[in-house]
Amino acid sequence: MAQHTIDMSTNTFNLENYLKAAKVDVEAALDASIQVVYPEKVYEAMRYSLMAGGKRLRPILCLAAYEAIGGDSQGDASRRDEALRVAMPTACAMEMVHTMSLIHDDLPAMDNDDYRRGKLTNHKVYGEDIAILAGDALLAYAFEFIADRTAGVPAERVINVVKRLGHAIAATGLVGGQVVDLECEGKTDTTAETLTFIHMHKTAALLEACVTCGAVLAGASGADLAKLSTYAQNIGLAFQIIDDILDMTATTEQLGKTAGKDVAAQKVTYPSLWGIPTSQQKAEELVNTAKAELQSFGSAAIPLMALADYITARDR
Amino acid sequence: MAQHTIDMSTNTFNLENYLKAAKVDVEAALDASIQVVYPEKVYEAMRYSLMAGGKRLRPILCLAAYEAIGGDSQGDASRRDEALRVAMPTACAMEMVHTMSLIHDDLPAMDNDDYRRGKLTNHKVYGEDIAILAGDALLAYAFEFIADRTAGVPAERVINVVKRLGHAIAATGLVGGQVVDLECEGKTDTTAETLTFIHMHKTAALLEACVTCGAVLAGASGADLAKLSTYAQNIGLAFQIIDDILDMTATTEQLGKTAGKDVAAQKVTYPSLWGIPTSQQKAEELVNTAKAELQSFGSAAIPLMALADYITARDR
Repeated sequence: MAQHTIDMSTNTFNLENYLKAAKVDVEAALDASIQVVYPEKVYEAMRYSLMAGGKRLRPILCLAAYEAIGGDSQGDASRRDEALRVAMPTACAMEMVHTMSLIHDDLPAMDNDDYRRGKLTNHKVYGEDIAILAGDALLAYAFEFIADRTAGVPAERVINVVKRLGHAIAATGLVGGQVVDLECEGKTDTTAETLTFIHMHKTAALLEACVTCGAVLAGASGADLAKLSTYAQNIGLAFQIIDDILDMTATTEQLGKTAGKDVAAQKVTYPSLWGIPTSQQKAEELVNTAKAELQSFGSAAIPLMALADYITARDR
Repeated sequence: MAQHTIDMSTNTFNLENYLKAAKVDVEAALDASIQVVYPEKVYEAMRYSLMAGGKRLRPILCLAAYEAIGGDSQGDASRRDEALRVAMPTACAMEMVHTMSLIHDDLPAMDNDDYRRGKLTNHKVYGEDIAILAGDALLAYAFEFIADRTAGVPAERVINVVKRLGHAIAATGLVGGQVVDLECEGKTDTTAETLTFIHMHKTAALLEACVTCGAVLAGASGADLAKLSTYAQNIGLAFQIIDDILDMTATTEQLGKTAGKDVAAQKVTYPSLWGIPTSQQKAEELVNTAKAELQSFGSAAIPLMALADYITARDR
């Protein structure tokens, strides 16, 4: 890990400022993406969860991947401008899809959670029926938003984005991960292989879509997409390992959601299988492998490098 | 109505054979669209509802709209071949979306139905959690399927299809209609205007997407799309009026779903507002208006004409 850390410390790149600025941009775009019209209740429910905060890591990864490939632009500032202009609809769609998955996962028929990001979950505020429908609407709107708002790139790239996003959500992605996760509930003999399947689908698949779709819009080659896929899969898995560690070590207040749920549910996690120190080490190895994939992109990938580090260093 | 009926009776077109052949084609494509792999349960749940029969009216409308515009083909047989080749992925996606909406509408948190098409509803067989996820997966996969499988047309048309389909599902379409429908439950003062909003969104929006997306793939002009939109909105509303009449007059066995539900739920419907004869007459007027929109398409629109008649004549 030292090598990349040194690379970045000698650079002027400041992740904190980058994240702050990107989050402001993303939240402005999300805020503008949904107006409340009749029937108001469902639009309010969509906005309630979409605008509930969070790190906005998925849209930020999408924009950063566009920057790493660069599109038609010359120079860092114009790269950023172009990423915001071309990839923002897709970045917003990623957050809509992520929000949909949280709303549906929190339902009584699934994880039955009352709190998310320190606020009541969607169905606790709007009822189960509206929560299911708000999720469906966010999912469908995400695709409409990409198709309707993406401009300035060949149409084939937009179709590729739609294809990758659909694949990352369906039974081949998010849904498949959640199904296996539900199947493992209350089981104490879940293997590391099954855990990895869950996280590769429930978490990594959408992160991979964020990164590869951003890159596709910027005209990435097949070879570059392969590297970015590996990067995203590795940080996705690392992200989940850290999540599981935080569930054991952080407070409910720090997390904004119920802490200690995995232990209470006797759920097998990486730290329960391997212990916390080994899990932490595995997460760091995954992040290092992820960063190694970015070598050939040079300084354009500094934000993606820093985002990988951020995932293992985060405390919530 | 007489004029079009005469037009068609002098023609060799046989709707029964057309529907039978189209249903066979659509069901073969649907059957091939989803393989059962790990985690099997969710794929089985998707297939259970997708392959549960039904008239396949939505994919058939999509293919018929392609035929009405004609794409690049010359002659009726090659029009049909081209429609099957180019529009079938979109046609299948329409049935996936329709199936998703049935699975989610039947959930205990929504309409709480135990039977659909004479079979147990999805959540009665697979549980609520899997039913929600199977719906989500069908929705996402529908978009992936269009983006991945559509070939032989300019990419811009595929993006247009994705946009229209998303719009027809989200709060601007299906979801918005279902939200208002839920809000009207148990209310005896629902107006005809509100009823029309519900049906224009819950039923007509997806039918409109079926017809316009088929036409978009075939390269329809804006003027043709406007005519086809009006056609689809009218038959959508007529379809729903007939559905409400059948709920009052047909048996559960005939419908394959619980009959008399609207009366039992004291739900306001067109026949409860207007009576059955007036409702029947309104449905026929809507169908005539729909068919009048198709005049300029000539004989290529005979299947769409016949499909409009079929909707008012059907008994389930």
